[in-house]
Amino acid sequence: MDDDTQLPGAVRPGGRTARTRQRVLDAVAALLLDEGYDALTIDAVAARSGIHRATVYRRWRDTGGLLADTVDAAREQDWEPPDTGSLTGDLIEINHQVVAALTIHPSIAQALIAASFRSPAAARALRTFWEDRYERAAVVVTRAGVTTGAREVIVAACSPVFYELALMRNPAPGGLAERYARMAAAAVADRLPAVSPDKRR
Amino acid sequence: MDDDTQLPGAVRPGGRTARTRQRVLDAVAALLLDEGYDALTIDAVAARSGIHRATVYRRWRDTGGLLADTVDAAREQDWEPPDTGSLTGDLIEINHQVVAALTIHPSIAQALIAASFRSPAAARALRTFWEDRYERAAVVVTRAGVTTGAREVIVAACSPVFYELALMRNPAPGGLAERYARMAAAAVADRLPAVSPDKRR
Repeated sequence: MDDDTQLPGAVRPGGRTARTRQRVLDAVAALLLDEGYDALTIDAVAARSGIHRATVYRRWRDTGGLLADTVDAAREQDWEPPDTGSLTGDLIEINHQVVAALTIHPSIAQALIAASFRSPAAARALRTFWEDRYERAAVVVTRAGVTTGAREVIVAACSPVFYELALMRNPAPGGLAERYARMAAAAVADRLPAVSPDKRR
Repeated sequence: MDDDTQLPGAVRPGGRTARTRQRVLDAVAALLLDEGYDALTIDAVAARSGIHRATVYRRWRDTGGLLADTVDAAREQDWEPPDTGSLTGDLIEINHQVVAALTIHPSIAQALIAASFRSPAAARALRTFWEDRYERAAVVVTRAGVTTGAREVIVAACSPVFYELALMRNPAPGGLAERYARMAAAAVADRLPAVSPDKRR
């Protein structure tokens, strides 16, 4: 039996607690991808991960707790926004990452979106993850000299990608990431300072 | 027993066939809104509409047929794109309509989006409805003098609304419709002909 009864102060990074968590979160992802939200129960996660049911229950409590921790784990990863030298280039790179997250097979991002229509906990996890990314990405807008509305610029660039690939599930049209990144940058072009031409588009 | 065994040529507009269809489609909408996609069966629609099960089955066949006809009926309505005198004004008005469709309680548009994650037929119906709207709305872009990429301009304006209200289910922030309509119009401002200033923004 694997367990994690250490006090928080006693937890070594990469120790048993971290391994337990990793195995549980791997099982959550596998269940979501293989069978969808309905399969995501404490019992199923215990069976799939090989972690004792009592441990899973004590630490994650329910499906909502499992999803929330999945998103927390993703947020703990060292994601850094791109720095290509221009607002347009940065938005294109961010959009390429969103396209990749939504078109990879199987896609945990798509599974979480589908789950969000079944469960308020999944919807919260979805929002938390993407809002965290947008907050971190805001620097690509402010760094370019657009001092207000950074989230709006990023949402303008990304949301057509979500619309096509997650909501309408259209096949990804060629140039999807670039097109809407360029439009979002063009929409604020008159708010960019005229420092150097390569920063403007 | 209500039935509709007339030949197509014998169908009077507003006659029994039309009334049967209206009652069935009203039942489809009511079931989707009250109980969600899982409740949408031929039996449940027959019971709710008071139309004989055999009639519903013969004409609509299955849940996919019911959803497809719901969307066809919506497309038959005389929706006309706005004509406010400017591209920005037209996009704002379209966005206001999307906001209204997604925030009205109960929202058939939101119910269809939720259903689209359960059923390929619902996903097809969803795409068909909105693509039809975008095709009809393309005139607001071409009329302003932007000769290519009309759908992209409309998607750029609308998709942040779908993103916030349908995908992330954030509370509608103030100015949502206006903000992204203005950004989409600004993104193509340099492609507008310099006819009259009021047409440009």
